[in-house]
Amino acid sequence: MIRKFRIGNPIPTDSVVKEIPVTQDNLPYFEKNDEAKVLTFSLNKEDKVYGLGETVRGMNKRGWLYTSNNSDDPNHTENKHSLYASQNFFVVFSNARQFGVYVDTPGKVSFDIGYTSYDKLSISFEDFDADIYNVEGEGVMDIVSQFRGIIGRSYIPPKWAFGFGQSRWSYMTADEVREVADKYQEAGIPLDMIYLDIDYMERYKDFTIDENSFPEFPKFVEEMKARGIHLVPIIDAGVKNEDGYDVYEEGVEKDYFVKKENGENLVAAVWPGKVHFPDFLNDEARAWFGNKYKVLMDQGIDGFWNDMNEPAIFYTEDHLNEVFEKLDDYKGKNLDIKSFFEFKDLVGSIDNYPEDYKRFYHDYKGMKIRHDKVHNLFGYNMTRAAGEAFEKLSPDKRILMFSRSSYIGMHRYGGIWHGDNQSWWSHLLLNIQQMPAVNMCGFLYTGADIGGFGSDTTEDLLLRWTAFGIFTPLFRNHSAMGTRRQELYRFDAVDVFKNFVRLRYALIPYLYSEFMKAALGDKMLFKPLCFEYKDERSAQVEDQLLLGESIMLAPVYTQNASGRYVYLPEDMKLVRFHAFDDYDEEVMSAGDHYVKAELNEILVFVRKGRVLPLAKPENGINTKDSDMSFICYEADPDSYELYTDDGISRI
Amino acid sequence: MIRKFRIGNPIPTDSVVKEIPVTQDNLPYFEKNDEAKVLTFSLNKEDKVYGLGETVRGMNKRGWLYTSNNSDDPNHTENKHSLYASQNFFVVFSNARQFGVYVDTPGKVSFDIGYTSYDKLSISFEDFDADIYNVEGEGVMDIVSQFRGIIGRSYIPPKWAFGFGQSRWSYMTADEVREVADKYQEAGIPLDMIYLDIDYMERYKDFTIDENSFPEFPKFVEEMKARGIHLVPIIDAGVKNEDGYDVYEEGVEKDYFVKKENGENLVAAVWPGKVHFPDFLNDEARAWFGNKYKVLMDQGIDGFWNDMNEPAIFYTEDHLNEVFEKLDDYKGKNLDIKSFFEFKDLVGSIDNYPEDYKRFYHDYKGMKIRHDKVHNLFGYNMTRAAGEAFEKLSPDKRILMFSRSSYIGMHRYGGIWHGDNQSWWSHLLLNIQQMPAVNMCGFLYTGADIGGFGSDTTEDLLLRWTAFGIFTPLFRNHSAMGTRRQELYRFDAVDVFKNFVRLRYALIPYLYSEFMKAALGDKMLFKPLCFEYKDERSAQVEDQLLLGESIMLAPVYTQNASGRYVYLPEDMKLVRFHAFDDYDEEVMSAGDHYVKAELNEILVFVRKGRVLPLAKPENGINTKDSDMSFICYEADPDSYELYTDDGISRI
Repeated sequence: MIRKFRIGNPIPTDSVVKEIPVTQDNLPYFEKNDEAKVLTFSLNKEDKVYGLGETVRGMNKRGWLYTSNNSDDPNHTENKHSLYASQNFFVVFSNARQFGVYVDTPGKVSFDIGYTSYDKLSISFEDFDADIYNVEGEGVMDIVSQFRGIIGRSYIPPKWAFGFGQSRWSYMTADEVREVADKYQEAGIPLDMIYLDIDYMERYKDFTIDENSFPEFPKFVEEMKARGIHLVPIIDAGVKNEDGYDVYEEGVEKDYFVKKENGENLVAAVWPGKVHFPDFLNDEARAWFGNKYKVLMDQGIDGFWNDMNEPAIFYTEDHLNEVFEKLDDYKGKNLDIKSFFEFKDLVGSIDNYPEDYKRFYHDYKGMKIRHDKVHNLFGYNMTRAAGEAFEKLSPDKRILMFSRSSYIGMHRYGGIWHGDNQSWWSHLLLNIQQMPAVNMCGFLYTGADIGGFGSDTTEDLLLRWTAFGIFTPLFRNHSAMGTRRQELYRFDAVDVFKNFVRLRYALIPYLYSEFMKAALGDKMLFKPLCFEYKDERSAQVEDQLLLGESIMLAPVYTQNASGRYVYLPEDMKLVRFHAFDDYDEEVMSAGDHYVKAELNEILVFVRKGRVLPLAKPENGINTKDSDMSFICYEADPDSYELYTDDGISRI
Repeated sequence: MIRKFRIGNPIPTDSVVKEIPVTQDNLPYFEKNDEAKVLTFSLNKEDKVYGLGETVRGMNKRGWLYTSNNSDDPNHTENKHSLYASQNFFVVFSNARQFGVYVDTPGKVSFDIGYTSYDKLSISFEDFDADIYNVEGEGVMDIVSQFRGIIGRSYIPPKWAFGFGQSRWSYMTADEVREVADKYQEAGIPLDMIYLDIDYMERYKDFTIDENSFPEFPKFVEEMKARGIHLVPIIDAGVKNEDGYDVYEEGVEKDYFVKKENGENLVAAVWPGKVHFPDFLNDEARAWFGNKYKVLMDQGIDGFWNDMNEPAIFYTEDHLNEVFEKLDDYKGKNLDIKSFFEFKDLVGSIDNYPEDYKRFYHDYKGMKIRHDKVHNLFGYNMTRAAGEAFEKLSPDKRILMFSRSSYIGMHRYGGIWHGDNQSWWSHLLLNIQQMPAVNMCGFLYTGADIGGFGSDTTEDLLLRWTAFGIFTPLFRNHSAMGTRRQELYRFDAVDVFKNFVRLRYALIPYLYSEFMKAALGDKMLFKPLCFEYKDERSAQVEDQLLLGESIMLAPVYTQNASGRYVYLPEDMKLVRFHAFDDYDEEVMSAGDHYVKAELNEILVFVRKGRVLPLAKPENGINTKDSDMSFICYEADPDSYELYTDDGISRI
């Protein structure tokens, strides 16, 4: 049962698609303090809190303070309160009680989950205007499914998007891209996508191609597609200010950009320097921008990723001027610990400067609204622009789309990647821990940058991360300019990588089936153990995942480990893969085990009475759902329900 | 057996005190490439590499690149190559072979331990001048002891320094300090030290007291001492440039500061703004600066911590001028992704700017040497300045001294704290993992800032960190201005903290005995399991420690955990402490266990045939070594050799 409570006069977000009347009852569980703009709830010792999507720390969110305030911050360290997304749904549960809460408000809201005081959960609002949904159900899974039922069906990508993709910021020319394809082919590693980061554009202008470095782009797209490779370009939330650039000129002419209080278009800056931001919250502007994707679709492109849509702001013209003025004050002074750090911070805090988000306005549902009040809807509506346009531009075929920033509701229009992570072991664990949390909030087509985006990767980290990444719907190796190159063929262990990626392809019938069942049935693809197992120990497990109905994963995520501890909530069959067609099986009893796992091994635990289907991988996504084998643990292979479709038609 | 090999013409470091002739044999194990200035060694799959002191990542250093280049960097994330210390000793070992290597060179040197290629260890030099010591022995422990034997005895603090200490950057007045003492007293939590961070000084001038906020300082020191509390002030490596300030004027007059190439004193800046750096590498200047500690000792101070001695440089006057000039170039431009980040980095990289370390010179052993060539000796020689002075100023009594920056050799003059860490769970684990590594390099009196220095702590993190911290010689709670207050009495769990700290005091007879045995016998206080146990699994354990001869620790270092896995290499007795006089004992068999550990519990594993003595804690360090009880596991209490002395006389 879901009840909707209203506080104040909330700005609508369109995140909930089901009509639910506002009840006049008192909000259950929470004490409401209007003056402090805070809702407070007493946690029992046993209460666990799961959800909040793409956030730092573990699966159980208890013990930290989370603030929904979409932020372009690549340092996902434990002390951060905000990352790229606002996914304000969580479940409180213990064996004694359970309920879900969705806080639907487009502005800043903080969840203090036992941070200030270990036994208090409090939700504080900048503006005390929100729709609060209370979800009651028979267990966590039921609560999640009910919630998912009111926010609409999760985005479904084309099946080829379940292939392996290679990306890097710094593929500067078509020839570099060709080389990546060649090298993968030589290595015998299947590849379905190459992502184009910002380098393919002419001076970082959306919907343009640099004709010098990527000449005859449509032909190039076709050439790659003939090799089974989709090119997936990045799209920036900012439109370059440049005379003669049609998107810029049209947007200015039609008044589609966000405006300062005085009515002038906001001048911010991102990759190309000065840009205007389309007002994605405005229906007309959103439709206009969405239609621009056609420029690339007409050249054969059928997948995109939307970036920088928190929006990231390197600087606004106005603030940069202020900074330059203030800098003069520090010239020739004896800067001590206080004034030196002030000076340094003046420049250090230019990008994503909080005050800049109060400098511009949207024309949203007929209201002029200052950006910070609806900040968390911006990336959502950029991706919605694309998603709504795709329905018209490509009414039959699915288009690949995922976004960096998000809000619940966006899950209907695209997936997400987990942002600009780092080549850190701790971020492999974070990847594992975020998967179920984003699933709870409707985001199913997701994955982190395998190997890490920033910092230098290592071969062993990349091996372990790939060993987990083969299970995530979005399976992409991506890295930043200036970091160590991390295409799989560059490492000594290239044959291990080949076996891993081919195993991914062998698993696609299972992964795609389970994904589709989750999307169509409002289920989770990845679950913490305690969502299905009620024993106390399962609730302690922060580094294992149930994936679909048949398997449990226990990835290795520490350096120099040749094994790890695994907790089995029931008897399971350990399948130790060296390759899709080279594996050992061993039935293990419920309880604790130390399990060996060398760098060239991938462990899968098949649940009792369940079936893991395996296909023979072909080159790329063309893997057929026929020619299958089945790994069963006390189950009949026929009991597994394979989901099949043509992988491309809209459903 | 230790052999000394010489490459090039190394600058002496005084880190090795034993005379060892240079052998003309070829350096064993390594291939030498003079052109590339690199030594290379092939690692076997089984080889582990331990050592390198205070560095990031796990106990086994394999898989990353470490650069000795003492750095003031508070973000100890996995991707960092350099922290505050250069401790260039490591041991390579497997069951098949083992040897130790000490690379004695005062400049930049990098250890690529299976980073570029998993089976290669290479050591690259900026200048190919070094003494390389090869240590062969019967097992790792023997290798470490032999090495320790040539670098001289580790620093021994007064026994009161094994008490608990509270610190925070921002105790602005004597009254604030009194309040801390009062609150601890009210809470019944023993306290032996309060640390004074930079706020006690007059305008951040070394060896001064702010008379307004800390009036009548000698009386205040006496007052606190009467309460059993030692005040331990911080000392900065930089001397403020201020007319009338005697240290500054004397140093200028006597030419004791480091100089630019043109002979002028370098103007750098740290806390007070512009400073000169004493030339600690110059014997006379070192003696002069060391004698300045007398100013505070005469006021009753008997302990110090040396900070900022990498040296940290906020800016040099010359570079800051360059930056301000360059900033103008960016004014009024359309800054794009490249130029914007250049601009931001121009200011962002001002502090600890690598080129600044090439702007000044030392007068070292009769040579004029550019700083970067001897960079890693700076903090060492600042602390040596103090240590050498203390021997004269306090010939009978030990003085507490520890330092942020270090190099092997400094371990004879002081301890270290593990730098400006963060309130991160991962830094609790880092603390655990660094302990044996610094012990290998001679640093025994060490500890990390309990609860984390930067970022906001949480109660559960502070509980778990304190539960580990009670075992580290330096046991200090310290935090930065602007972060959440983390004195123990501020939390709901104050009684748990009381039990923990009192348990620390009960353990002092054991901790002090084991510390002294380690110091006097060139042993390690903290050891990885695999230094004593030869089974394969012990070598995999990265989160347990042997402490002294009797016990093993398995701290909890993850959020929301109510237990953890523990590997027992042999049967042990688990002692589950709720308080020093409230504990359960349980014998556990060798192998893997999942062990419960609630937030109010501290687990100690007593080894077979060993004894853990426990005293009845008095208020503060006055805990007597009489009135003892003994927890034994198949051992006679008399078999434990207690080390006792008066705790204060030099030995």
